[in-house]
Amino acid sequence: MQAEIVSVGTEILLGQITDTNAARLGRTLAEYGISHRWRQTVGDNLDRLTDALKLALSRSDIVFTIGGLGPTEDDLTRDGIARALGVELVHDDGIEQHLRAFFAERNREYLASQNRQAQRPEGAEILENPNGTAPGLWCERDGKIIVAMPGPRGEFGPMLDGPVAKRLAPLSGDQVIQSTVVKIAGMGESVVEERIRHLLKSDNPTIAPYAKTGEVHLRITASADSRDAAKGLIEPTVEKIRAELTGFVYGQDDETLASSVVDLLRERELMLAVAESCTGGGLGAMITAVSGSSDVFHGGIISYSNDVKMKLLGVSQGTLDKHGAVSPQCAEEMALGAAKATGADCALSITGVAGPGGGTKEKPVGLVYIGCAVRGRVEVEKNLFPGTRDTVRERSAISALTLLRQMLA
Amino acid sequence: MQAEIVSVGTEILLGQITDTNAARLGRTLAEYGISHRWRQTVGDNLDRLTDALKLALSRSDIVFTIGGLGPTEDDLTRDGIARALGVELVHDDGIEQHLRAFFAERNREYLASQNRQAQRPEGAEILENPNGTAPGLWCERDGKIIVAMPGPRGEFGPMLDGPVAKRLAPLSGDQVIQSTVVKIAGMGESVVEERIRHLLKSDNPTIAPYAKTGEVHLRITASADSRDAAKGLIEPTVEKIRAELTGFVYGQDDETLASSVVDLLRERELMLAVAESCTGGGLGAMITAVSGSSDVFHGGIISYSNDVKMKLLGVSQGTLDKHGAVSPQCAEEMALGAAKATGADCALSITGVAGPGGGTKEKPVGLVYIGCAVRGRVEVEKNLFPGTRDTVRERSAISALTLLRQMLA
Repeated sequence: MQAEIVSVGTEILLGQITDTNAARLGRTLAEYGISHRWRQTVGDNLDRLTDALKLALSRSDIVFTIGGLGPTEDDLTRDGIARALGVELVHDDGIEQHLRAFFAERNREYLASQNRQAQRPEGAEILENPNGTAPGLWCERDGKIIVAMPGPRGEFGPMLDGPVAKRLAPLSGDQVIQSTVVKIAGMGESVVEERIRHLLKSDNPTIAPYAKTGEVHLRITASADSRDAAKGLIEPTVEKIRAELTGFVYGQDDETLASSVVDLLRERELMLAVAESCTGGGLGAMITAVSGSSDVFHGGIISYSNDVKMKLLGVSQGTLDKHGAVSPQCAEEMALGAAKATGADCALSITGVAGPGGGTKEKPVGLVYIGCAVRGRVEVEKNLFPGTRDTVRERSAISALTLLRQMLA
Repeated sequence: MQAEIVSVGTEILLGQITDTNAARLGRTLAEYGISHRWRQTVGDNLDRLTDALKLALSRSDIVFTIGGLGPTEDDLTRDGIARALGVELVHDDGIEQHLRAFFAERNREYLASQNRQAQRPEGAEILENPNGTAPGLWCERDGKIIVAMPGPRGEFGPMLDGPVAKRLAPLSGDQVIQSTVVKIAGMGESVVEERIRHLLKSDNPTIAPYAKTGEVHLRITASADSRDAAKGLIEPTVEKIRAELTGFVYGQDDETLASSVVDLLRERELMLAVAESCTGGGLGAMITAVSGSSDVFHGGIISYSNDVKMKLLGVSQGTLDKHGAVSPQCAEEMALGAAKATGADCALSITGVAGPGGGTKEKPVGLVYIGCAVRGRVEVEKNLFPGTRDTVRERSAISALTLLRQMLA
């Protein structure tokens, strides 16, 4: 079974968006042992899209299109598929009903242009899209398959992992590839590599380290004749890595640093609060991205101004006058204040200079103090983060979660 | 002049890396007015790479390869180019000397395998690579050009911006392309299209709508014989769009919805606060992503638990008992409470069911109330957002900013 991806969209060619969907689909195909030799990218042009699909059908068994399923006139994927397969586009009443219901539920007017999305190539089956309007399509003809998925990430991912994955499973090849990502926080990439150097030489599974903002991920990939056999190759390696990096591995695959913290707090029956200055809510957003975080998270205070630091967190005027808002003293008072104001057992505080402006010689851009209070015991960590405003803010939130993990360990 | 990109690397097909280089090159080509209709991605396989290059040469004038220039046996781009152009690979003493010097400087042994990198297709010119070992190649033959650049980002970027850009400038020839993105919030993609349908038929500039989470962007692209002439074509179209969509266009290009709100508040000399339940700090993070937002943003309260809603925002027990936390009444009290607690002029509140759990028939996943208080006057908006937990949260924050814009207008 030979697969090919055709990404559709002028905005991809022009580099206005980066094609992360194709990369994600590539990983899924590898997991199912489906060989994948070509990827084409074309703009919103019917002739070129049709040619790309015909070329793909001439050399591949299953062709995946990404994008071009929306309601506008430059959404041409349905038309291109119909042309490439030599079938007509037909109106599907079922899709139209579904679309009308979607709009009615949201009190939005159903415009005639939406009917473009109710079209499908004759013989195509519908792949449901609970996260948007355009359904996906599964088209089989003359022993070939074209699968069409929408481009918006929040629609593409769930459709790939849901209805598409279900249909791919029976198509899997002889050699399947399985991989696992082991996630590490609180240790730099070169130190991680140094510690596991003896493991990196392995051929199957392979271990590929890559650095993420504030974290290091290790991708362990094995190839074998079954999923179980591949997993059997991966597991001992994961155990060895965990043993070498005790305390720094926080999770695997879909686990996030925040979800590992939420799990840890739930296990210890502790409630958390936050007090955020330079991150402005980013730490809270990271924690509450975890479904079920309400079990362990009260909320907190975004104390962007000094006024709010004093009024809502009880930071003293004296501390602000003497040490300033970006100081270990302020971080400590913020953490204790957040715990007190919300009645939480633990609290994390962040105060720093995110930049690009506002840095001084004494307090340069990237200087961030992180406070962590656990039942009245407080630790404050001083950091000097490199990078842009966004990076400094992201690293601050990640370091706060890492500090809490360490204090709870 | 027609350009095409061929990205080379099995790791790209497998999704182990995302092809950000091709996106970057796409942006550069657009800036130089070089039209770019196709992108191909192939793995580390000589036959398929050669075929891809031949196909590209058959329809494009200049072909850019990315990757596959390293010293290992699966670095095949040099070989593929030689085959596609029908020339021999020759050893280049100058490159070898350069490589030997590079290794000597770093006290690293020069291995025989490095000599692969000293090969070039006959007639190819060398593009210097101060950031790595593999040089780039500029190959002209029979009126066609192949440009080969290395894949590592730290080598690709400088080579593109340096020697490659220098050689592209004279090719940008007659027609340069300029584009502008007009950004819209508070109106769906199909309504936007309906309103500006008469403008969409334009050929130069073209207008391409695309939907982002909670927003619609219109890219207006003009081609002309100079940058100024292209800009002259774009501006009247932007004016017409702004006139058709008064109140919904919030900005252009690098402006974000949050930056437009920060500007508006600064202009009106108003201070803002937030009260966030299901977004957990995401709205505050969006606002404080704007450098200088401290001028207009006090901070606020992340009221994830009902306890915090009562204690810090003064939401009444009665409201929570009678209407629940996800209710217009609660959104109103949260907004007023945030303004009062922080002393702000305006406040935004968000309370809803982000999912995936926690939905009921009366209060389904995606139901989100947004409150906006401006100097004591409060409006509450009811939304039913489709999508995943992440999308519902993102749309909530975006809708809150949109509501504030509308109330201030």
